[in-house]
Amino acid sequence: MKNTKTINIIGLVGFPSVKNGDDLAELINRTAQKQGVPIEDGDILVVAQKIVSKAEGRVFQLKNVDPSKKAKEIAKTTLKHPSFVELVLQASQRIVKVSSDTFIVEDNNGIICINAGIDKSNIKGDDSYALLPRNIDDSARQIRQKIMEATGKNVAVIISDTYSRPFRKGQVEYAIGIAGINPFRDYRGKEDLYSYVLKVKNIAIVDEIAAAAELVIGQGSEGIPVAIVKNLNSAELTEKCATKDLFISKQEDLFKGTL
Amino acid sequence: MKNTKTINIIGLVGFPSVKNGDDLAELINRTAQKQGVPIEDGDILVVAQKIVSKAEGRVFQLKNVDPSKKAKEIAKTTLKHPSFVELVLQASQRIVKVSSDTFIVEDNNGIICINAGIDKSNIKGDDSYALLPRNIDDSARQIRQKIMEATGKNVAVIISDTYSRPFRKGQVEYAIGIAGINPFRDYRGKEDLYSYVLKVKNIAIVDEIAAAAELVIGQGSEGIPVAIVKNLNSAELTEKCATKDLFISKQEDLFKGTL
Repeated sequence: MKNTKTINIIGLVGFPSVKNGDDLAELINRTAQKQGVPIEDGDILVVAQKIVSKAEGRVFQLKNVDPSKKAKEIAKTTLKHPSFVELVLQASQRIVKVSSDTFIVEDNNGIICINAGIDKSNIKGDDSYALLPRNIDDSARQIRQKIMEATGKNVAVIISDTYSRPFRKGQVEYAIGIAGINPFRDYRGKEDLYSYVLKVKNIAIVDEIAAAAELVIGQGSEGIPVAIVKNLNSAELTEKCATKDLFISKQEDLFKGTL
Repeated sequence: MKNTKTINIIGLVGFPSVKNGDDLAELINRTAQKQGVPIEDGDILVVAQKIVSKAEGRVFQLKNVDPSKKAKEIAKTTLKHPSFVELVLQASQRIVKVSSDTFIVEDNNGIICINAGIDKSNIKGDDSYALLPRNIDDSARQIRQKIMEATGKNVAVIISDTYSRPFRKGQVEYAIGIAGINPFRDYRGKEDLYSYVLKVKNIAIVDEIAAAAELVIGQGSEGIPVAIVKNLNSAELTEKCATKDLFISKQEDLFKGTL
């Protein structure tokens, strides 16, 4: 191959099962080394939310959760277990929608999502559910910091999770925590092929990277919770970044009133 | 590298400028060969909508468009050119929202989007705008058919475009036309790491592939309108597929009433 532009998305297979208290940076480093995938300057590490939650002890058993009166009320409408509703409420700052089909909230991280992102896939125990990390950007920063200290390389970290979207069937992966990467590739004010100045284009590149990584990470029994994205030169690695830059207020949302 | 799972996303650089009537399959084949990127069984070709529109003569000059009375009325609210509004109306089956900030429609292909996907980036001429292809799945099928005939390889084709989304800032790439690929990777009924049967997970894999390809295709003056995705074993190549399977009715949409 000559004169091509190629991005490689490498899934780390044989990743060890993650337990409460595990050092994810160390596990990622070790697994990458074992597989002969050296971590290099500019690499973007995409880490599935579930292992971050596990490492941070964010797994709860419903039998240990005491549902509030409010949770019991909502459970009647959502047809979900009152203790599950209680977990969602504790992880949320605002209820967006309660129906027999769905329970949509703005979670404590500011993400509008179903069930505050709480689910039980890939969690051991019939009664066990994983909550999102408490501060997902912090989680990403810690992993990034440790990997940079261990390797001496400048990397970015994206923590990803799977989300349903309005208007379209099926789910895609979003970035829910970031460290070391500009969430956008902003073309506004730049020129296109014919010197026309672009006005709107501002690509949410971290969401696209999360989606790309999901293609190797998967959802089920693949057992690949981390992917390394290499040669992605169009991403800007920067200290100054926050996932909340991706959030939009209802007032600003062009789709306001359409659903 | 041993025991890894790696996907490669290869951007075709040096792609010729596309004109009305061009045979895209032939251009893709030739450019791939010239770059030493052989098209192989299982490859997924992601083609930016703009070159499909150009090849199909879907570029219009506003000065040649006669705005209807309805277009003139709407133009007063949207603050857009009446002839631009007319193009959007002709490309749409339903108006979703008209405001001074935005003009959202359900286009003739069934996509809910701003301005029916019509824009002027990477289109020659100050007054020229590109409409989406008339039947985008048909366009994808034609490209796929010709590439398969020329190469003897089984490939899939995704035509992609950039979309704004509710709830999140910035745009990401979506699949707007598909051929030869199941739009979903459906985990419902399958088991996770701990034999728990997944109930909801149904990944819109073609949207994730479009997003992944955008990472090399870009938006501005990159001049890379096609990417080849290799080694994506988790995609199911199948004749039976349609982009409309990704659409959801307002009644079914879990986010109904949230915006």
